[in-house]
Amino acid sequence: MKKQEPQTLISDLGEVKLIERLTKDFSVKYQSTKLSIGDDSAVVDLKSGSTVISTDLLVDKIHFNLDYMPLMHLGYKAVVVNISDIYAMNAKPKYILVSIGVSNQFSVEHLEMLYQGIKLACKNYNIELIGGDTTANNRGLLISITAVGNAIDGKIVKRSGATIGDLLVVSGDLGAACLGLMVLERENQKVLKNPHYSPILEPYQYFIGRQLKPEAGKKIFEFLQKNQITPTSMIDLSDGLSTELSHLSRSSNVSFEVFEDKIPISAQLEKIAKKFNMNYLELVLNGGEDYELLMTIKQKDLPKIMVNPNLTVIGSVSKKTSKNQLIKSNGTRFEIVPKGWDGFDYLTKSHIQTHHNDKPSDKS
Amino acid sequence: MKKQEPQTLISDLGEVKLIERLTKDFSVKYQSTKLSIGDDSAVVDLKSGSTVISTDLLVDKIHFNLDYMPLMHLGYKAVVVNISDIYAMNAKPKYILVSIGVSNQFSVEHLEMLYQGIKLACKNYNIELIGGDTTANNRGLLISITAVGNAIDGKIVKRSGATIGDLLVVSGDLGAACLGLMVLERENQKVLKNPHYSPILEPYQYFIGRQLKPEAGKKIFEFLQKNQITPTSMIDLSDGLSTELSHLSRSSNVSFEVFEDKIPISAQLEKIAKKFNMNYLELVLNGGEDYELLMTIKQKDLPKIMVNPNLTVIGSVSKKTSKNQLIKSNGTRFEIVPKGWDGFDYLTKSHIQTHHNDKPSDKS
Repeated sequence: MKKQEPQTLISDLGEVKLIERLTKDFSVKYQSTKLSIGDDSAVVDLKSGSTVISTDLLVDKIHFNLDYMPLMHLGYKAVVVNISDIYAMNAKPKYILVSIGVSNQFSVEHLEMLYQGIKLACKNYNIELIGGDTTANNRGLLISITAVGNAIDGKIVKRSGATIGDLLVVSGDLGAACLGLMVLERENQKVLKNPHYSPILEPYQYFIGRQLKPEAGKKIFEFLQKNQITPTSMIDLSDGLSTELSHLSRSSNVSFEVFEDKIPISAQLEKIAKKFNMNYLELVLNGGEDYELLMTIKQKDLPKIMVNPNLTVIGSVSKKTSKNQLIKSNGTRFEIVPKGWDGFDYLTKSHIQTHHNDKPSDKS
Repeated sequence: MKKQEPQTLISDLGEVKLIERLTKDFSVKYQSTKLSIGDDSAVVDLKSGSTVISTDLLVDKIHFNLDYMPLMHLGYKAVVVNISDIYAMNAKPKYILVSIGVSNQFSVEHLEMLYQGIKLACKNYNIELIGGDTTANNRGLLISITAVGNAIDGKIVKRSGATIGDLLVVSGDLGAACLGLMVLERENQKVLKNPHYSPILEPYQYFIGRQLKPEAGKKIFEFLQKNQITPTSMIDLSDGLSTELSHLSRSSNVSFEVFEDKIPISAQLEKIAKKFNMNYLELVLNGGEDYELLMTIKQKDLPKIMVNPNLTVIGSVSKKTSKNQLIKSNGTRFEIVPKGWDGFDYLTKSHIQTHHNDKPSDKS
């Protein structure tokens, strides 16, 4: 984390003035907002449709590394990660509450950068910040965000609705965010060993961008609304395709057949993965943080889905067997074992590392 | 924190099974709950009235000390602290989302104790747990709770409604929770110095109880509803009377005159405070965590208020002057300077301490 000037001590400002300063130009966007920041609670009018609520906790050194994650990007990403869960219900995010815990290594200006990112995400996704809590932390930084969204009654999409014969569809491309993390980790290690080293990031811009500034499924949500498509089940890809498939599989009591050569990947992924001595398939199946939407749709909706270049049919829903399967182009089948991110993998490691395994894991 | 047997490693269980185990017998209590734990988000139907949302972040060694705070009490208190903010809006808490970050010093059984307390609070306050996030933490424990409540339209009470001539009313008695903390801190220091020392807690049970297992303003909220009293302003006493008065004062643009001998205190408070070589008034004005409700009411509501022995008129609302004033029994006046808890006081201290100043502070 680069030092900024000037540096204002958080303790000099105090909690009330700090919150005022950080939140001063967050705008009210909805008529339904009755009372925003500054009282014991926020008050909102949610009389239309159903209310969708989700929360996420991000901890320094576990979910992010400030060595290469700029605070503004972190603020942006923290919001995106959260509202991604709201889109995954086929709902529209409207409000967030942001709690942060900070140690004394952070100045007011640092927090202002974090809030710049939060503000930009609020602008891009039309979200209002309506509350939060700001307190001291023993070490590092933690961010807890709760997102509140609105869904049209009857249009909510759960994890549990996939039925046999449905098609499995994914947005965007997979594995890029994890590759971006690997590049950042590698270059950071080099910088830590030799402070004069200039990190080589240019050839990996797309991947680094996917890691540092992911986007949530707003466009896909709007496309589904406009085309009157209601997926039968949906989840966001935060922890990797293999793990998210296992969630859908379990909730819907079905299995999935996924065609390897249908999985959308960016042009460079396979080539760069090779440079890292790994099979790109590890990234695609187990790399997380793509924040794409994974959904099942009725076959009748296929023509509507196909016109959108950002949606790809990658497989289908079959009867519940023991495992989900990957089908290679030569027809051979492999079991897809969930190997994505688990919040507690970390606790088994002897050293602190960020979100992802950067090597193929042999954990089941 | 005492070691328990058996000890199950969190990492052995994994996130999904851990959450299943911790939340398995939390019951659904409301028809408005459309979808609870287990999907990307919770879904609730909030079509009646307005929705009140609040969030709080509690960090190990800053907000609590596990040396003497049992995990079950901590779980209970974490919920109470949060829904106290909902009652402070004159609203009924219905839902909570609980995020926890834990280091590898905690076992599954530890977390089960924490959730026992959360469950008991949910039972006592008729609250549903509908979501959360559970992840690793670098060190210690952190708890972030978001509470969602329901308010009758037009009955929401903000901090900003106090007007000149209104009466200042407080529930329960003040200063007890802070005195309880002082006792616990003192006895804990003795145990740390001499592990064979038996802490003397018996004479202080009431105060320790107020610190370890506080209650939120459910009964007062129900009394206000039943008697059709809508306070003109309200806040919960989490950070001490002096600080909360300054919040009401600023939001409502009024000042307060508080009569020292009207402030309700428990029978033993003054005597025990003396043992600690301190003026009980320090506890009453600056001690926090009582989670009582501080409100202003119209004079016409006085007869209705007076029948409730748990509500006491302690002063009145006057024109905005520079400061709030304490009026002694002999008529002399003192300025009430906000000296309660500030989330960032901690950052100016050279050592880690829990929530409160245990000495009169000279900070302004």
